Amino acid sequence: MRLLTFTTPGAGDRAPRLGADVDGLVLDLGVLADHAGADLPRDLLSFIQAGPAAQETARRLIEADPAARPAGAAHRLEDVTPAAPLRPGKIIGVGLNYVEHVEESSRSLDTDKELPPRPVLFSKPATAVTGPGAPILHNGDLTQQLDWECELAVVIGRTAFRVSEGEAYEHIFGFSIVNDISARDQRRSGQWFFSKGQDSYAPFGPVVVTADEIPDPMALDLSLRVNGVTKQKSNTRHMLFPIARLIADISSGVTLEPGDVIATGSPSGVGAGMVPPEFLVPGDTVEATVEGIGTLANPVVDAR
Amino acid sequence: MRLLTFTTPGAGDRAPRLGADVDGLVLDLGVLADHAGADLPRDLLSFIQAGPAAQETARRLIEADPAARPAGAAHRLEDVTPAAPLRPGKIIGVGLNYVEHVEESSRSLDTDKELPPRPVLFSKPATAVTGPGAPILHNGDLTQQLDWECELAVVIGRTAFRVSEGEAYEHIFGFSIVNDISARDQRRSGQWFFSKGQDSYAPFGPVVVTADEIPDPMALDLSLRVNGVTKQKSNTRHMLFPIARLIADISSGVTLEPGDVIATGSPSGVGAGMVPPEFLVPGDTVEATVEGIGTLANPVVDAR
Repeated sequence: MRLLTFTTPGAGDRAPRLGADVDGLVLDLGVLADHAGADLPRDLLSFIQAGPAAQETARRLIEADPAARPAGAAHRLEDVTPAAPLRPGKIIGVGLNYVEHVEESSRSLDTDKELPPRPVLFSKPATAVTGPGAPILHNGDLTQQLDWECELAVVIGRTAFRVSEGEAYEHIFGFSIVNDISARDQRRSGQWFFSKGQDSYAPFGPVVVTADEIPDPMALDLSLRVNGVTKQKSNTRHMLFPIARLIADISSGVTLEPGDVIATGSPSGVGAGMVPPEFLVPGDTVEATVEGIGTLANPVVDAR
Repeated sequence: MRLLTFTTPGAGDRAPRLGADVDGLVLDLGVLADHAGADLPRDLLSFIQAGPAAQETARRLIEADPAARPAGAAHRLEDVTPAAPLRPGKIIGVGLNYVEHVEESSRSLDTDKELPPRPVLFSKPATAVTGPGAPILHNGDLTQQLDWECELAVVIGRTAFRVSEGEAYEHIFGFSIVNDISARDQRRSGQWFFSKGQDSYAPFGPVVVTADEIPDPMALDLSLRVNGVTKQKSNTRHMLFPIARLIADISSGVTLEPGDVIATGSPSGVGAGMVPPEFLVPGDTVEATVEGIGTLANPVVDAR
């Protein structure tokens, strides 16, 4: 399933809805569940927490006869406004997880030239999350070095603590996209939290694709464009620490909970690594694409 | 008010309760509210989110005639088990915020000798929180350098975004204690998240004291003992960046929400700074004390 959180314009009711994108048609799972008398959580985080039974119910609702759908159950994709899929309990980012990005970072961002022996972990708070189409806030009083990073996002489905690599995939709900925005000039004594954790610095979406529809998440093309010009282009197969290793490593000490997000790292092609460096300015549009998931597009706006 | 989250043994009902510590007696605010027919949130996070009206109701309940209290409204402090006061949306830590700790860290922890020009910010996830008396998990497979840091914790009361230093205190709900536990040997390419973010690495409590009862949070003695031996002893007046500056700085880019916690940094006397270094081992007990708040005591247990 391609799940999303969306609003529809007008009609007074602008509360976010849980939907499924089925061939360009957005089905409102709440409307379908009400019509069928089915028990279904109404937001994606609760849906994930509800486990496999909720997914089976949703699949049944989606696959039911289209002719029997009640009014308001289906919208054209272009008629809805997608929001961030959910508000994660935590977002764990992975730094320096693509070999060529390690090299460009050592040239431009005072990180080590050597490949990291263990995953380099940091976090972004839930307040950093913003949805597809929503502005990335450029505050010129705080940064002149606003940068992009296209990343495959893993959405946790089942609590994971001390999980082996072999068991790791059982704890994945699905996949999405995070654009790991950084104000490179706001690293603080090397710590990345304020550089990467500001409001709007975690564009997330547009959908969460359930794990069953991504047969091999370690073989996905990913790319990023600024104003239509390609800046990043790689494939998840080039990750230094693959997804199973990341889940095993993080969960060796940190409990991963349903709805938590792991942003699995950025390939090369970030602005700080360009010669000369290039950074985002108000008026830019950034589009991050991951194969099988879609494109997450956000404008950069002046937020002084 | 000295607010806490607690459970009582036996009686079948072990769901955490919201209470107030009044001269060594724990008043169950839910029981008092039920008895008085008053509307009061039943957990501390909801209580904070409810704003000043909830505080006024709680004060009225606490100050009512003790003779009129219903059965089960009051417990002796020694008869209840305090839990972590709440699960914060985020915990933002401040590194290197006491001058002498900057010096000891530069000797032992590869940080800069110079005072940081801006607050050094990092974060701990909500899954790291543990309560008073609960074990700090020592996993000898992951760390041989488990360290302590006694810190004054600021609990946010009202959403703060781009708040000036002059307005900062209006956004504080109250104060508590965080013991900022670190596995010094789990820093990853300099990032502190995995070092400081593991489960149980944020002991928190035992109470949250409302801001009106701490006239000057910048003049509080704080100290920490391991097995009864004093390791840290300082006063919050020695913070490099005072509380108002921290709130202004963080909120310049990151929205602070009700219930969020700022751990304001540790004075000198951490284990890594000792000559030779000293670290926590299973069987140790750590006690962190902040004047006007209390003592947060936690045992260290073998968690391999």
